[in-house]
Amino acid sequence: MTRRVLVTGASGFVGRPAVLSLAGREDLEVHATSRGPAPAWLPAEVRWHAVDLLAPDGPRRLVEETVPEAVLHLAWEATPGRFWVSPLNLDWVGATLRLALSLAESGECRRLVGAGTCAEYDWTAGWCVEGVTHLAPTTLYAASKDATRRVLETYGDQVGLEVAWGRVFFLYGPHEHPDRLVSSVARRLLAGERAPTSHGRQRRDFMHVSDVAGALSALLLAEGVTGAVNIAGGRPVAVADVIGTVADEAGRPDLVGWDEVPLSPPIRRSWRAT
Amino acid sequence: MTRRVLVTGASGFVGRPAVLSLAGREDLEVHATSRGPAPAWLPAEVRWHAVDLLAPDGPRRLVEETVPEAVLHLAWEATPGRFWVSPLNLDWVGATLRLALSLAESGECRRLVGAGTCAEYDWTAGWCVEGVTHLAPTTLYAASKDATRRVLETYGDQVGLEVAWGRVFFLYGPHEHPDRLVSSVARRLLAGERAPTSHGRQRRDFMHVSDVAGALSALLLAEGVTGAVNIAGGRPVAVADVIGTVADEAGRPDLVGWDEVPLSPPIRRSWRAT
Repeated sequence: MTRRVLVTGASGFVGRPAVLSLAGREDLEVHATSRGPAPAWLPAEVRWHAVDLLAPDGPRRLVEETVPEAVLHLAWEATPGRFWVSPLNLDWVGATLRLALSLAESGECRRLVGAGTCAEYDWTAGWCVEGVTHLAPTTLYAASKDATRRVLETYGDQVGLEVAWGRVFFLYGPHEHPDRLVSSVARRLLAGERAPTSHGRQRRDFMHVSDVAGALSALLLAEGVTGAVNIAGGRPVAVADVIGTVADEAGRPDLVGWDEVPLSPPIRRSWRAT
Repeated sequence: MTRRVLVTGASGFVGRPAVLSLAGREDLEVHATSRGPAPAWLPAEVRWHAVDLLAPDGPRRLVEETVPEAVLHLAWEATPGRFWVSPLNLDWVGATLRLALSLAESGECRRLVGAGTCAEYDWTAGWCVEGVTHLAPTTLYAASKDATRRVLETYGDQVGLEVAWGRVFFLYGPHEHPDRLVSSVARRLLAGERAPTSHGRQRRDFMHVSDVAGALSALLLAEGVTGAVNIAGGRPVAVADVIGTVADEAGRPDLVGWDEVPLSPPIRRSWRAT
């Protein structure tokens, strides 16, 4: 039996490899969506839908067009440097809940998998374990993701829609936005420019974006698995080691400006937009 | 100095006395809104705005019309028997977040007070104390309210908008919907009909709706007070005592059908819509 699956945010950093990981399977009919037209890399058998999910009727229209049985919902504000504090986070809460409403109303969807974030956890605990580590999102991005999951799980339980929540940690890989950590450092060093970084002593769980996408796709198809699931390797490394490796590969460790920028938002206790 | 305040859900059970409690003050310019036209009871000095906050541009239009400095946001799905599980809860999350976005964008609003619910708490704890009792909303209504507060507090902290959250407990009083507890029992007994009730041993914190409205109005004006605030008397009584009092007043204690209906949703662990 063929399952009809839908991937939102399909043109994104994680969306692209997620679609590719699902596209080859004969037991799936894969639909994919973002605001823009079908990208050049899209496999011929994947059906593309250009829909703005932030438009008031976007979610309903998308569900009517695709009538999916399972949805991997990756669409969200993701502009590097902005997404932690963007007001669009609030719009994405609403859009995601409208999507869930339309999916439940369609009567066809059995499973909704959302993309959460490690920033939902209280990082002072040292470990991020599902159902064990206290949740304490301090950024608007993390608070919005966390709140969305809370409503989706209760709603899913009520209407019989399985909800799973893949908490994504740190990523790198092909087609990364040029302003993200690994890509920005690599880009600067290869251009012979200085790359200012944090002290780098913080440990982060990094995973190649293809592995993240593969894990989320697996979660999409893992019927019966619900709730939060960490999408992580379980072996955090010091950011200095990641940057050091990039610098060695680029042959320019001399250009890394250690401890010249503050840590990124998620560990700040009270983060304010500047 | 006159403060411009706005009350949403102003035609509702709590909204009406809330507007009335604010209307008399010379230091306030009071705006009030609901979907319908200005009600007959509205004091002449209160400015009415008929706006559907669930319409995509409703929140933005309301803020443009009123440019409030402080908002008491009471509008939400409230149909007795339905509101615990209504899909409209998800729409109200989105509408409330859109309202907050518009308020922040206006640059004029300093304070937003939302109406939460005692059902956000884990009732197995026995006590509901702000910041102490664990939160464990089990109904879609409570989960949606709780999630909304979480996003609003983080957003408010980020943009400099004070957010307070009045957790309302149990209410009775004039203009109560005829299907709510006190009104439905009184109505049936006065009509000479049987009134089936629960066993009544559960203890609930009941408060007259005028006191609830007064407390919420006070919270609206209490600049600097943020976060969750219980709107309750602190002295819970057995529901059987409330019903018994109503039955004695009506002179028909013989018509009360004790233990003939299950407890209402908020204490159920896993509540499903029927």
